[in-house]
Formats: sequence, C-alpha cells, structure tokens
Amino acid sequence: MSHYKLNEKDIFFILKEQLKYGELSKIEKYSDFDEELLDMTVTQAIKFAKSEIAPLQEIGEKWGAKCEDGQVKCAPEFKKAFRTHAENGWLCPTAEPEWGGQGLPEMMHTVIEDLMCGACQSFNMCPSLTFGAAHLIVSFATEELKKLYVPNMLSGQWAGTMVLTEPGAGTNLAALRTTATREGDHFKIKGSKIFISWGEHDLAENIIHLVLARIEGAPEGVKGISLFVVPKIRINSDGSLAQPNDVKCGGVEKKLGLHASPTCQLNFGENDDCIGWLCGQENSGLAHMFQMMNGARINTGVSGMAIAGTAYQNALAYAKERVQGPDVSGKKSGWVPIIEHPDVRRMLLWMKAMVDGMRSMIYAGAYWLDLSQTLTEGADRDHCRNLIDFMTPIIKAYCSDMGFRVCETAIQCLGGYGYCADYPLEQYLRDAKIMSLYEGTNGVQSLDLMGRKMTIGRGAPFLAFKAEIEKFCSTNRAHPELGEKVASLAAAAGRLFEASAEMTKRLRDDPLQWASYTYPALQAYGEITMAWRLLDLARISCEAVSNGQGNDFHRAKILQALWFVDVTLPHTLATIDTCLRKGREILDMPENGF
Amino acid sequence: MSHYKLNEKDIFFILKEQLKYGELSKIEKYSDFDEELLDMTVTQAIKFAKSEIAPLQEIGEKWGAKCEDGQVKCAPEFKKAFRTHAENGWLCPTAEPEWGGQGLPEMMHTVIEDLMCGACQSFNMCPSLTFGAAHLIVSFATEELKKLYVPNMLSGQWAGTMVLTEPGAGTNLAALRTTATREGDHFKIKGSKIFISWGEHDLAENIIHLVLARIEGAPEGVKGISLFVVPKIRINSDGSLAQPNDVKCGGVEKKLGLHASPTCQLNFGENDDCIGWLCGQENSGLAHMFQMMNGARINTGVSGMAIAGTAYQNALAYAKERVQGPDVSGKKSGWVPIIEHPDVRRMLLWMKAMVDGMRSMIYAGAYWLDLSQTLTEGADRDHCRNLIDFMTPIIKAYCSDMGFRVCETAIQCLGGYGYCADYPLEQYLRDAKIMSLYEGTNGVQSLDLMGRKMTIGRGAPFLAFKAEIEKFCSTNRAHPELGEKVASLAAAAGRLFEASAEMTKRLRDDPLQWASYTYPALQAYGEITMAWRLLDLARISCEAVSNGQGNDFHRAKILQALWFVDVTLPHTLATIDTCLRKGREILDMPENGF
Repeated sequence: MSHYKLNEKDIFFILKEQLKYGELSKIEKYSDFDEELLDMTVTQAIKFAKSEIAPLQEIGEKWGAKCEDGQVKCAPEFKKAFRTHAENGWLCPTAEPEWGGQGLPEMMHTVIEDLMCGACQSFNMCPSLTFGAAHLIVSFATEELKKLYVPNMLSGQWAGTMVLTEPGAGTNLAALRTTATREGDHFKIKGSKIFISWGEHDLAENIIHLVLARIEGAPEGVKGISLFVVPKIRINSDGSLAQPNDVKCGGVEKKLGLHASPTCQLNFGENDDCIGWLCGQENSGLAHMFQMMNGARINTGVSGMAIAGTAYQNALAYAKERVQGPDVSGKKSGWVPIIEHPDVRRMLLWMKAMVDGMRSMIYAGAYWLDLSQTLTEGADRDHCRNLIDFMTPIIKAYCSDMGFRVCETAIQCLGGYGYCADYPLEQYLRDAKIMSLYEGTNGVQSLDLMGRKMTIGRGAPFLAFKAEIEKFCSTNRAHPELGEKVASLAAAAGRLFEASAEMTKRLRDDPLQWASYTYPALQAYGEITMAWRLLDLARISCEAVSNGQGNDFHRAKILQALWFVDVTLPHTLATIDTCLRKGREILDMPENGF
Repeated sequence: MSHYKLNEKDIFFILKEQLKYGELSKIEKYSDFDEELLDMTVTQAIKFAKSEIAPLQEIGEKWGAKCEDGQVKCAPEFKKAFRTHAENGWLCPTAEPEWGGQGLPEMMHTVIEDLMCGACQSFNMCPSLTFGAAHLIVSFATEELKKLYVPNMLSGQWAGTMVLTEPGAGTNLAALRTTATREGDHFKIKGSKIFISWGEHDLAENIIHLVLARIEGAPEGVKGISLFVVPKIRINSDGSLAQPNDVKCGGVEKKLGLHASPTCQLNFGENDDCIGWLCGQENSGLAHMFQMMNGARINTGVSGMAIAGTAYQNALAYAKERVQGPDVSGKKSGWVPIIEHPDVRRMLLWMKAMVDGMRSMIYAGAYWLDLSQTLTEGADRDHCRNLIDFMTPIIKAYCSDMGFRVCETAIQCLGGYGYCADYPLEQYLRDAKIMSLYEGTNGVQSLDLMGRKMTIGRGAPFLAFKAEIEKFCSTNRAHPELGEKVASLAAAAGRLFEASAEMTKRLRDDPLQWASYTYPALQAYGEITMAWRLLDLARISCEAVSNGQGNDFHRAKILQALWFVDVTLPHTLATIDTCLRKGREILDMPENGF
C-alpha cells in the first residue's frame, strides 16, 4: 500500500469553483474540452497516480540509482511504469494530436504534474523531462529533427533530458565551457556536464539530450550559447537505432533525497566522437531554453506543493488515529487522538492553509500561462502574460521553500515516528529540499522578481499583479464575513507595492543594498498571494453557505482563511519594513568577521 | 579530513567576556579551577573533538547500525573512540573525583557537549547517555549498586542508556505498561520499549539500562512508575560479568539521520528472566528521571545549536571559495566568490547571529544551572534556579527548531551541491531534525513554558526571567550605540510579559484556546532571548572598540546584533499579537474539514 493521499475535493474546488476551468472550452483551440471531460481527465489522472505511480515512491527509495560502467539500472517497476504512463496518455496530454498528444489545455499539464509529483516525484521527473525536451525540439528544431525524434519521445519509447549545468557553470551559465565544432550538417560536442536529472537510465531504449554548448568562435557569455540535440544512441535516417554516441555517464550523485532519480555526470565526446544537431538558432540556446522557463519554474513550485500536500495528508491521517495524552481542557476522560490537542491542530491548520493556498496560486498561474498563449492577441492576453511573468518566481521560490517547511511540520505531528523511515514523511522532507535549489536557486528567483519583473515593459508584470490584487480587494471590501480581512490584505499589499517602488529606485542607485533584501520581499509577495488566494476560496465558500449548500468543507475553507490572514499579514508587514531598512550591516560585515 | 569547523574565538568570547566563567572559582567546590585551567580544558576538548571525534561523522554514516540476531555491530572506529574519549577524561569531567571525574564545574559539561556534538552527534550520544545513566545511579541508587556499576560506567568500560518510551507511551508516559515484579532483593522486568538510543551496541562490554517500569499494584498514571537498573549482562558481586540478562534488541529503527546511532527496540523479559534493581524510591521513577530533565533538555538544545554551528562554518567556507556570477553592483569585473553576493551574505549573517545567540543563550543557561546547584542557599541561588527552569524549554525548543533552520539555510548557500552527499550539509540537516522531537516534542516544551513555568512558585521562573531582561534593558538603555535597539528589546519584552499574564489567565479560563498559541509564545520568548544575548555580546564588543582593542571580530558582533534586533523584533511583536487572538479557528475547525 502506498502512502499517497490527497483530498480530491480540494483540487476540484479550485479548478471548478475558483478558476472555472470549464470556461477554457470557449477558446477555440480547446472547444472540444468541456468541463465534464476535464473533470474526467483529472479523475483518471488521480486514479492512475494512486494505482501505478504511488507505489514507486517506496520501491525507488529502496532500489536507488547506481552507475556501473557508465550504465544506470533502475527498478524494473520504473521501466514498466514509464511505458504504462505514456501508453495511458500522461506523458504528453497537452501536446498537439499530430505529435501523439490529446491537445488538452496547457494548464492540465500542471494539474497532472501535481498528481504525479505527489505520488512519486523521482519517477515523474523522467516523463516530465522527456516531455520538456520533446517540446524544445517541436518548438525550435528543423522538421527533419522533429520527425526523427519527437514521435518516439512522446510515445515513451525514448526519454529526454535537459543538459545545462557544468561544475563551474551553475547559476551562472555564462561560464559554460562545453564546445560544439561544426562538421558538415552536424556538430562535434565536447564537455563535461553535471547534475543531469535522469541523464542515464534504462527506462527507455534511447535518451535524447538537449545540450547547451558553445560553438567555436561564438561570443563570450550567455550570447554565445547554442542548443543541441544529442542522442545517447545515434539514429539512422529511417529512425532505427545506430551505434552509441560517445556520451558517457561518469557517475551518479549521492543525494539527500530523490534517490530513485539518477542525477548524472555526463561526459560528451571523451573520445571525440559525440555528435549533435543544432536545435534552433545559433547562439540563441539560452533564449530557447528560457522560453520554457516559466513552465519549468512553475513545475518546481508544483513539486514543492504536491509533496507538501501528500505530507500533510499523512500527518492528518496519523493525527486522527494516534491516541496519546489527555484532553487539555480536562473535559474528556482517558486518552484522546492527538488531533484533539490544540497545538497539533495548529500545525494541521497551518499545513492545510499552506497547501490549499499554494495549490490555488499555482493552478491560477498555470491558468494564466495557458491564457497567455491561447487568448487572441490583445489586452487580456497581455495581462495574463504579465501576471504569470510576475508570479513565476513567487510560485517557484515561495512554494518550494514553504513546501519543505510543511514537510518539516508534518514530521513534527508524528513525534519520534516522524523521524523513522517506517513512515513516509522523512522521505518527503528529503525529496522536497531540492526544489529550493534547482531551476534557479530561490535567491536568484528573488533577484528576478524584484529586478527584471519590476522593470521590463515599464513594470508591466508588476502592474498586472498589482491590478489583480487591487481588483480583488475593491470587489470584496464590503464582504460581510471577510471584509475585515480583505481590508487587511489591501493594507498590506498597498505597503508592499509602495515598498517595491522604493526598492526599484534602489536597484538603480544602490544595487547591493537592494539585493540584500530581495528575498524577504519575495517572501512578502508570497504571503500576499497566499492571503489573496485563500480569501478567494473563502469567498466562494461563503456563497455556498449563504446558498444553503455549505458544509464542513466550506466552513473549513472560511476558517483557514480568517486564521491565516490574521496570523500571517502582521508578519508580512514586518518583513516589508525590513526590506526598506537603511542599515547596511549585511554589506558592511567584514569578511573575516563572519 | 573531517568537515568539523568552528570558530574558537566565538566560544571563548562568550565564556570569558560575557559569562566570565573564571569567576566560578570563587565557589568553594570549584576553587581549584581558575580561568586558565578552564581555558585549557576547552582548548583540549576542541583538539580532541577535531582529531578523534570529527572523523566519525563520515565513518558512522557509511557504516550505519544494523541489528543481527539481537546484536548491533558498530564501526570499529566508534569502539576505539569510546575508549579513548573516556581515557582522556571527556566522559565525566564534571563527576566527583571519587567516581573518576575531575570535578570540573557542571557548566563545562555543556561546553564539552557543544564541541563533541558539533563534531559527531551520533557518536557523542553514547558517552553522553552513559554519563546520564551513571549520574542517575549516583543520585538515587543504593551504595551497593553505586559501587557495582558507577566506576565501570564512568571509565567507559560499560555503557548506559535511558529507557522510557513504549509504542503506546511516548509523550504520555502515564500510559507506560512495562512491569516489575518483586523477587527477593530484585525485580523481574517485563515489557517492550522503543526508541532507545544506543540501546544495543558493541562499544562496551556491558550496557546498563535505566528502565522505567510499573511495580505490580502501583498506582495508575505517572505516580506508579519506578526506575530500575537493568544490566544487559548480569554482574557478579565481585563486579565480574555473569550470564546475559534476557534483554533482547528486537531491531534498529531506520531513521532520517543519526544513522550511526542505533535506535533500538528492546524487549525485556521475553523469557521471564530479566532482572533489575530498584533505583531510588518506589513510584518515584519519573520524578528521579525528571530531576535530570533540565540538563537533558539543555543538551538537546546544545545539539541543535552545535550541528547548526558546524553547518554554518561549512557554508561560510564554501561561500569564500566558490566563484560564481558577476558582482551585483557591476563594479568588479569577472566572476566573484559568492560571499560577495548580498543574498548569500544575508544568509550567512542570519546563520552567524543564530549560532552566536543560541550558544550564548545555552552557555548562560548552563552557567545558571551550575550556580543553582553550587551557590550557597539564598536569593541568588533561587534566582538562578528559577531562571534556568524558565529557560530550559526555550533552549530546548527554540534551539532545536532554529538549529534545523540554520542547516536548511546552509544548504541553500551551496546551491545544488548542498543537496549532494559529497558535502556534509545534507547529513547535518538530517541529524539535526531529531532534536525538535525527542526529550519532549517542541509542542510539549511550549505547554511547559506557558503553563508550569508561569505558575509554579507563584510564577517565580517567569519573574526571574523578566527581572533579568529588565535589568539588562534598564542598564543599557542609554548606550550610545545600542540604546535604540535596547529600547526595542524593552518594548517587545514588555509586550510579551503582558501577553504572558493574559495567557496565564486563559490557561485557567479557556485552556484549549491557551494551548492553541503556546508554541508561538515560545517562539517569541526565543527571539527575545536571542536579542538580549546578541545585544549583550555587542555591548562587550563596543567596550573593546572604545578601549581601542576592537577589531573585525568585535565590529561583526555589533553589526549582527544591530541587524538581528531590527529584522527580528517586529516579527516578535506580530507573534505576540497572534497569541492573544480571540479567533477560535484552530479549535472550531471541524475534524472532517481538515
């Protein structure tokens, strides 16, 4: 039996009541998908995640991932699941039918990621990366490359990877040194890469690497980076497999978590015999890669939230069953289940609010990302693009940091048992930690949010977010039950927007001082977004209650919002003040004083 | 080479300049120990921790701890170290010379724990538990038992354990079911225990278990629990080893961290042949155990802080070496070490302040605990006892929770490398997590702080802490450089003290609502204590600067206090307001709404 637990009602409430995702069918591209069909897809994905993916969490942890003679052998169940996952249409449900997909709305990709990540993040990375790599080929490669690679990738026959990092080039890709030397219609690739997730494995008969490298003579820095398609095994023009391609796995990292996901060192062209094909334009490799960055960063937030969601549900189930200690009020005799202890309830309520708010934030982001690509050109589409541009670093950083915090709190609910591997929580904690680190560390996200997203297009992303919050607040300020909390949100958001303008001035005048406080500012944005999303869920719940359709589900949504806003926004205000400090201690610290 | 790193100057600054621990020699019992001798002891402990203990951190992690046929075999290096550690006098430096100790001041035990835990917590638990078990025997057992057991334990020939928890009796020891049946001068012990740290191993030729059990016919609940000495191998009256004692290790927990420390299930009397001897008075077992609780809980805080300290020092060393990315201000060309990035400096400064403040809080606590046992009876001694009674749950819970947070932040400084086992940080994170859970979960600590410690002796522990803070604030309010921050501390502390009085009323009138906010209240106490300790370190540093003896070390201490107080106390105020909320959402949440 697996430990995957989720409350389907929470998911559907956001999709159907909050986002009204059925209305996506009004977009011509999605006209075939009415709400019922989307609901059915989600239901099937949940079923598949529970029955086929969730058991892999424990299996993979035991099996691990080891590299022997350049080959990584994974648990046989992983190989089987990779095939089944693709056969059931979960690898590329949003891809165009011409590539084997169902053409589902883009946002469904995020919902499905939520379910599969929550069930087993280490496994899900493999199909997810395969889809991402195929997507890059579809978007930028020649027709010939597309036909040769994409169908086999999206059918799950071949897998794919994203190959960016080098030992000296992590956050700073400008320092990238892998080279590409032209040779006829292709290139010779040479260089060492690290931290390549699923860079080598036996889940598929071939692995297609999407590799960043520098063509000889290219400009220095990020403007001289190109993207290449580099198969593990070369492919004949009829699509059959030819000889190996001088791509060697030099080892697999031993990591805190995600033990079943092989994080590989890959050596390209050790014997000068690795060939690759240019994907997209010369020297535009990073731009191509970054075109998918919003999606990839949202997915990182999804992972943090999804793992947190599973951890919360496990803590909740434990708290209902575990009997320990007397009733604090002394009214009940004997021992009580620990869910009756107020401090345990406090932790559960916090986790519930965190997961619900993060999921709402993420699904909304995915929805706007979808609209930004599918609405007809115009102000609405621009607004959605600006909104998701702004929210992407918030989703990535806030949900990954707080997802980890939720796992920590879930462990706390179990007492000593939380520390033991007999319970699934310690694994969730370990798995979740990576999300703060990859796809750009959370510090880098904060520089992006308070830098680029405040300034590009005369601050259009910032203004879109501001408009959205202000609209929500002005619409709901007079709400009979929530009005007071909405006013708190309006006040805190107003302070944050003013502080942001101040910080943007600093970005020009005093960038070091600015950069000392971008991370707290991102945290404040995360909290404001959470308050907004939770109040919105409460607003809908209040409607259900006034319509006589309310039940404990709705009452809980209202309570969590009232509580969260009240205990969180005072901290948000404290954080905002911090961001505008004049004190320069962070910068003034003598290096040998640390 | 081990990864143990520490800044000795930080330790000596607290001991010598802040606590002036040399003055302990004014106490008659300690008259042999002048400051120079104490300094030498600390220096030797550092040397020993670095050379002999630190390498065990990696060795133990690789070896782990497995139980086969009831026997646990540890890494041979652990066995050797256990012997060397005792031979060098580190097992019981504070014990009376009659028991083989040096009679060093009690507080030195805490300092030595800091050093050994920071070097290798899993190892250090074994001698530490042995000392604790021997201490119980010395304190409560008959002369005969003392002579038979204590010398061999304190020489490291035998080890010791504390055996409390059962599957149904963790936090709630009242539910304990292990039985003791009188049989002549001894008892037959029968029952299953879990989570026994170092419950079985091969570091010593015998293991002496201090076991809580219920004598047949004893009252129910905690008032019917007695303490027993139960050797793994029976001992002849001449002290030689006799036959085994029907104590069987049923297995070792697989845990998140501390892999080298075997956490055992122990079965006593499976074949009805386990004998034990009463230690202390019948039905007073829990009281005997709890007499050592302040020390044990302070030690848990020590572990959290010490691991955090090592994690911080590793992150710092990495940040100075790792070159990545350009200077944010654009003034320097090329790539720079990441310690020049403001967001990395922010993390480093926070970790530095946390470790320094926690260490100061803990050492001060240990100092007062020492004085509470060694000063002549009177107001000063009472004040110290009250002070440490109050500070114990703060030290335990705040330092364990924040110690973990420091490890998390240290990982963040390393980016993706932080997630890899090639670097020591992921292990520190895993090791540190247990501290929030054992010796009473942190939730339980908060109930103790805001309950018992506010009410016993008419609130004497609370009043002692309040007096101490108020004295510091009134003395330093006019300080030219720190006065403003001292005023902030006074204001926040004043609010917290008022809120505490309010909460104490609630404890009587509305205990469930009270218990919903005891944990945030404990956090607030932790932050107030941190601000106080850091400002006090800054005060001493200001003196050094005005005396013309200041250097970067002192300037850094001043900067960290100015920054910490400014960015932390606004959050403390927000937390305090939270504690007094009238909203009852935590309690009102319908169970099926979670």
